[in-house]
Amino acid sequence: MRGKFEPTVLEHFGVMKIIGFNTKGAAHLGVVEGEEVIDLQAVDPSLPNDLAELLRRNNGDLTSLKALAQRAPFNARRPLDGVDYALPVARPGKIICLGVNYREHLQEAFHGDRFEASPTIFMRCPSSLLSHGRPIIRPKVSATLDYEAEMVVVIGKRAKHLDVSNALSCIAGYSCANDGSIREFQGKTTQWDMGKNFDATGAFGPWMVTADDLPPGGKGLKIECRLNGTVMQSDNTENMIFPVAESIAYITQGMTLEPGDIIMTGTPSGVGLARKPPVWMKAGDICEIEIEGIGVLSNAIADESNSTGSLN
Amino acid sequence: MRGKFEPTVLEHFGVMKIIGFNTKGAAHLGVVEGEEVIDLQAVDPSLPNDLAELLRRNNGDLTSLKALAQRAPFNARRPLDGVDYALPVARPGKIICLGVNYREHLQEAFHGDRFEASPTIFMRCPSSLLSHGRPIIRPKVSATLDYEAEMVVVIGKRAKHLDVSNALSCIAGYSCANDGSIREFQGKTTQWDMGKNFDATGAFGPWMVTADDLPPGGKGLKIECRLNGTVMQSDNTENMIFPVAESIAYITQGMTLEPGDIIMTGTPSGVGLARKPPVWMKAGDICEIEIEGIGVLSNAIADESNSTGSLN
Repeated sequence: MRGKFEPTVLEHFGVMKIIGFNTKGAAHLGVVEGEEVIDLQAVDPSLPNDLAELLRRNNGDLTSLKALAQRAPFNARRPLDGVDYALPVARPGKIICLGVNYREHLQEAFHGDRFEASPTIFMRCPSSLLSHGRPIIRPKVSATLDYEAEMVVVIGKRAKHLDVSNALSCIAGYSCANDGSIREFQGKTTQWDMGKNFDATGAFGPWMVTADDLPPGGKGLKIECRLNGTVMQSDNTENMIFPVAESIAYITQGMTLEPGDIIMTGTPSGVGLARKPPVWMKAGDICEIEIEGIGVLSNAIADESNSTGSLN
Repeated sequence: MRGKFEPTVLEHFGVMKIIGFNTKGAAHLGVVEGEEVIDLQAVDPSLPNDLAELLRRNNGDLTSLKALAQRAPFNARRPLDGVDYALPVARPGKIICLGVNYREHLQEAFHGDRFEASPTIFMRCPSSLLSHGRPIIRPKVSATLDYEAEMVVVIGKRAKHLDVSNALSCIAGYSCANDGSIREFQGKTTQWDMGKNFDATGAFGPWMVTADDLPPGGKGLKIECRLNGTVMQSDNTENMIFPVAESIAYITQGMTLEPGDIIMTGTPSGVGLARKPPVWMKAGDICEIEIEGIGVLSNAIADESNSTGSLN
């Protein structure tokens, strides 16, 4: 769980990290404290076990959890090591993704001959995303499985028609994502969504860090993707073409954001597709996404089982 | 509720139509019989009030509802007139959409200079879709609200890696959709999803007709869009470039379809964008989508309220 980045000043002040996890077949929420998890359902069984619902009930403000976690009894504490992670939001209502949102990635993707005046928006569905620790699946039908390190924005409050000055106020926190893509299918037509929505090809986690524990808009954070320990992408969130506030202002012209919706904010340069020869992830690989002040999202790669398929 | 099409032989044999509706603030499911609705929750309170869950419990087979509806007591029957329609599936897990899937629409969209070897896939989210009878909202930020008549496939069984020979077996039924689009935002970047996901700009309904009451794959059905009574689109579902079975085979290479997922199968030619001058829907208009053997989906258009916005 230790990342490669040096702990920053942020991490010395006990940022609040909220995880989803499974225990005895049930979904729970937890607050990570050092090497322990405080099981919120063990502290107070009346608390929702889904972050979207918890955010809805608290109007996006989770500061009360800090006091709750501090007075958690011994029997509500579990070792973090060995926890069965679930997605921080079990089933986001919307997964809104930004394409080509880092300057150098725009260069490698389009050789600098394109500039979009607006954010490029596409969508993922929940079945395409896995939690920290679960294997990303390389499908039977294509070997072109690529990684994409991204910062995730988790929405805390219902929001529409925000502008740049108030856009950040709807954010509950930040997380990491791997916007895993099947490049062959992404490029079959003009629209990317087929290649972005294969089952279990992306990842989201390991936890959500609450917004007040990070710089406004998650700006200025190192972001990195490592494949089997080799750095494949390395950039800083300040190099987004459309920063978080601008992106939220754009999106909420048309879409109401709801608690538990997530925005994946685009990936830096260095994707496997742009390399010569291209680099594809394969069974046995380990892909890690690290964002400064947030943490490390780690997933192994596995091949799709030959037995999947048909009707059931 | 009467459509313009002549009743076909299909409609004389009492096809099963399943609706979602709201009564006293609660979601219910109903079976339409002539001018009445049989309220399934009044017949048997243990039945799920969500079609996705009902399909899951019955492994996609709703034939038992026919007998249940037939023996429904008098006090479970409501007049269809005045029913407050909800979406046939309250919250589809995935809304998979096919783009440029009718031959003449491909011509008008790309002037015949393009042919895709694979279905073009994009996604909508549930908040973009309204039920029959509710107003489609023209947003404050753009007047370019366009209609798109589409046949909807409702998935009844979990399915992956189907082929053309067994693809239709995962279908529970068919419905109508208006894949309403904000063309200005659809065209701002290469990816269409922003223009396809404005709040309350599309529609889905009025009901689901079970698959065994229609030709396999919903093939050979007249499909029409009327704006204020004027026919704007008129075609036949047999003119899809990728018919339903082919589309499902393609999609399930990568995505597991689940009960309650829907596929919007693309729109015929005649959209407002392709007209000279373009035709946009405006407040007070009535847009009707009719598909032979299924029914009429009707929605008025209203302007977005000036009071929408900000955080709540």
